[in-house]
Amino acid sequence: MATDDTQPADGTVYLVGSGPGDPELLTLKAKRLLEDADIVLHDKLPGPKIIDMLPDDGCIDVGKRAHGDRTPQWEINERLVELAREGKSVVRLKGGDSFVFGRGGEEATYLAEHGVPFEVVPAVTSAVAAPAVAGIPVTHRDHASSVSFVTGHEDPTKPESAVDWGALAATGGTIVVLMGVTRLPLYTEALREAGMDPDTPVALVERATWPGQQVATGTLETIVEARDEVDISPPAVTVIGGVAGTRESVVEFLRND
Amino acid sequence: MATDDTQPADGTVYLVGSGPGDPELLTLKAKRLLEDADIVLHDKLPGPKIIDMLPDDGCIDVGKRAHGDRTPQWEINERLVELAREGKSVVRLKGGDSFVFGRGGEEATYLAEHGVPFEVVPAVTSAVAAPAVAGIPVTHRDHASSVSFVTGHEDPTKPESAVDWGALAATGGTIVVLMGVTRLPLYTEALREAGMDPDTPVALVERATWPGQQVATGTLETIVEARDEVDISPPAVTVIGGVAGTRESVVEFLRND
Repeated sequence: MATDDTQPADGTVYLVGSGPGDPELLTLKAKRLLEDADIVLHDKLPGPKIIDMLPDDGCIDVGKRAHGDRTPQWEINERLVELAREGKSVVRLKGGDSFVFGRGGEEATYLAEHGVPFEVVPAVTSAVAAPAVAGIPVTHRDHASSVSFVTGHEDPTKPESAVDWGALAATGGTIVVLMGVTRLPLYTEALREAGMDPDTPVALVERATWPGQQVATGTLETIVEARDEVDISPPAVTVIGGVAGTRESVVEFLRND
Repeated sequence: MATDDTQPADGTVYLVGSGPGDPELLTLKAKRLLEDADIVLHDKLPGPKIIDMLPDDGCIDVGKRAHGDRTPQWEINERLVELAREGKSVVRLKGGDSFVFGRGGEEATYLAEHGVPFEVVPAVTSAVAAPAVAGIPVTHRDHASSVSFVTGHEDPTKPESAVDWGALAATGGTIVVLMGVTRLPLYTEALREAGMDPDTPVALVERATWPGQQVATGTLETIVEARDEVDISPPAVTVIGGVAGTRESVVEFLRND
């Protein structure tokens, strides 16, 4: 079916975030839509517990393809339009929130361009939840009056990097890096070169709310070593700023772990 | 009862965010804890629909006091400790997420200092959800590779302001301002003075997911006029950056409104 047809579709696409991974951190609306959907398109990022909850039929894993490749975004976009034109109620399920580094914005634009009604269902973003369950508030009156979210996917040593680490450091607020395990040495160095205090507390939270959650703490100078000692692997969230130091004072009474 | 007693409490305090206001955007965990709690401490920020769901007994509104004052934070902290020491299961319910400008970090520290076990229950933050339900993703490959959250409570013309608007502008990412209706003229001017393009798209989303949701759009130069035309009042979220311009291209097919 051609996807350049501009006739409005009968079905609806729901751009639904699954939250950080604990099925109890799904919203009531996400749960209802997952139960009522004709079809759910997902990848592995919602985490094993939520993936296991999905019905075997009526689910398409768009994260995997033959030979280990990922389904390209344009193919997912076309699939969403086709299914909606068949009159289906379609849930596009993403890990975290669809509109925080989730490409939900691109999907929304494509759907609107092709006459497909859609609804956005916001979710608990891992950028807030991963620090929170480790006892770290991303803002705090004593430490940070702003917080910035950024991805660690880009190489900060490349001139075409869209992320200005110096400007992020200059805000004086908390910096939360998503998908930033591998490039941790590069951006912690970029922040130190930008003049950020090497003693700034840093925490890494791996698999927040998933089975096997792990936390490593240190400073801008020591966190790479701490990462390797604790053996932190993706997916993990990095929290940089005074707030990361608060975990130590609360962890004895924190019941999230 | 003295709150400097360091003997561990028998009860537990749950620091629970209610999300932006739509009861369906509560997490499953928040709903379960609200149903099971011995007592819920809340203010008005969860919004009318969620407040109406709470049982009449077993609820304390800590937002209001005689003569229109708010209950001071130290008094809420002490109350939480006292209730937990009575062995109660206590929910401290906040609008949005407790750890995003919600003073949850201060409550966590106080609880730990006084030997009270606590659990953090992350929620859908209004900083992401308010733009999202208006069709605006806070990050987007074409527009923003970072997003910063800040409050509009502080006066940017005062030298003691902790918010560096120039640094936020320099990140090149989206800026989301919470509680920023009244001071909109001040910080939009601060951003223009910092060199941000006056044609940068800006959107205001009032009462996101509440009854009476309203949206106003404009640019860094025109948004104050747009605010007044649409009559945007608190509570509202301001989104500044290229992403705010995407609403126009999707709103015809957006089914959140």
